[in-house]
Amino acid sequence: MIYYPYEEFKQDTLKLIDKLKASRYDAIIAISRGGFTLAHAVSQALGIKDVRSIRSSLYDGKNRLECVEIFGSCELEDQIQNALVVDDISDSGETLEAVMAHLISSYPHTTFESCTIFYKNTSKYRPTYFVHESSEWIEFYWEVDFKVGSV
Amino acid sequence: MIYYPYEEFKQDTLKLIDKLKASRYDAIIAISRGGFTLAHAVSQALGIKDVRSIRSSLYDGKNRLECVEIFGSCELEDQIQNALVVDDISDSGETLEAVMAHLISSYPHTTFESCTIFYKNTSKYRPTYFVHESSEWIEFYWEVDFKVGSV
Repeated sequence: MIYYPYEEFKQDTLKLIDKLKASRYDAIIAISRGGFTLAHAVSQALGIKDVRSIRSSLYDGKNRLECVEIFGSCELEDQIQNALVVDDISDSGETLEAVMAHLISSYPHTTFESCTIFYKNTSKYRPTYFVHESSEWIEFYWEVDFKVGSV
Repeated sequence: MIYYPYEEFKQDTLKLIDKLKASRYDAIIAISRGGFTLAHAVSQALGIKDVRSIRSSLYDGKNRLECVEIFGSCELEDQIQNALVVDDISDSGETLEAVMAHLISSYPHTTFESCTIFYKNTSKYRPTYFVHESSEWIEFYWEVDFKVGSV
């Protein structure tokens, strides 16, 4: 387990933005909750005001198959031609794979790319852009720093 | 203009969480984009997995009246009894006032509270919970730290 502090997130996010800056996105879609902080940072850096979110839940379905349920809709209007889907990590890849498939089938007029900070090479889904390939368990600062009692 | 770094945000968010911890929320609603980072932090600290977002835009309407337009819907189901609306600052208060009015009228079965880090006493809207009263222009770290060229 590796603690991932804000200062590293800042440096990595700058590297990610460098990869993203040639693209033009009309909207950012944050995967809830993990993608919220990164989506906020990327939206500020790229000057994209349209930031939405989508929720999903990974659970053990029938017959021991893992299922991903998508909740809500980010309601992409026709003028959204390019959208960037943001999450913190593509770990198993289940969530990103399901969210991307859902978005692509729901909004055929929109082109989707995705980005994360971390990508595990055992993941089922490879983000369009990522900063680190890792096999470690990452403990993001937002999972640790705001626990009552932490200083 | 005051730069507001991550370390201060961390300390202030812990203070905010101390005010919030006695409440029970079924969902968190982040106001896009400003509330995203705080909503993520609060959701982690309080263990609330259901985090959604809502978008709004402040613009000069006809007859010089300022108008706030709300986009999208966070689609609160009947089982959401208590929800926490999160933004970074209640500045003019226009956005929070409009978002709260929209949510209260759209979802009469849900009770809403709100929180921010900063509250200006000239604001039209006073959040249920906030940490600082300020008359300064706050430059949040997420508005500064991810600009290309910042180190």
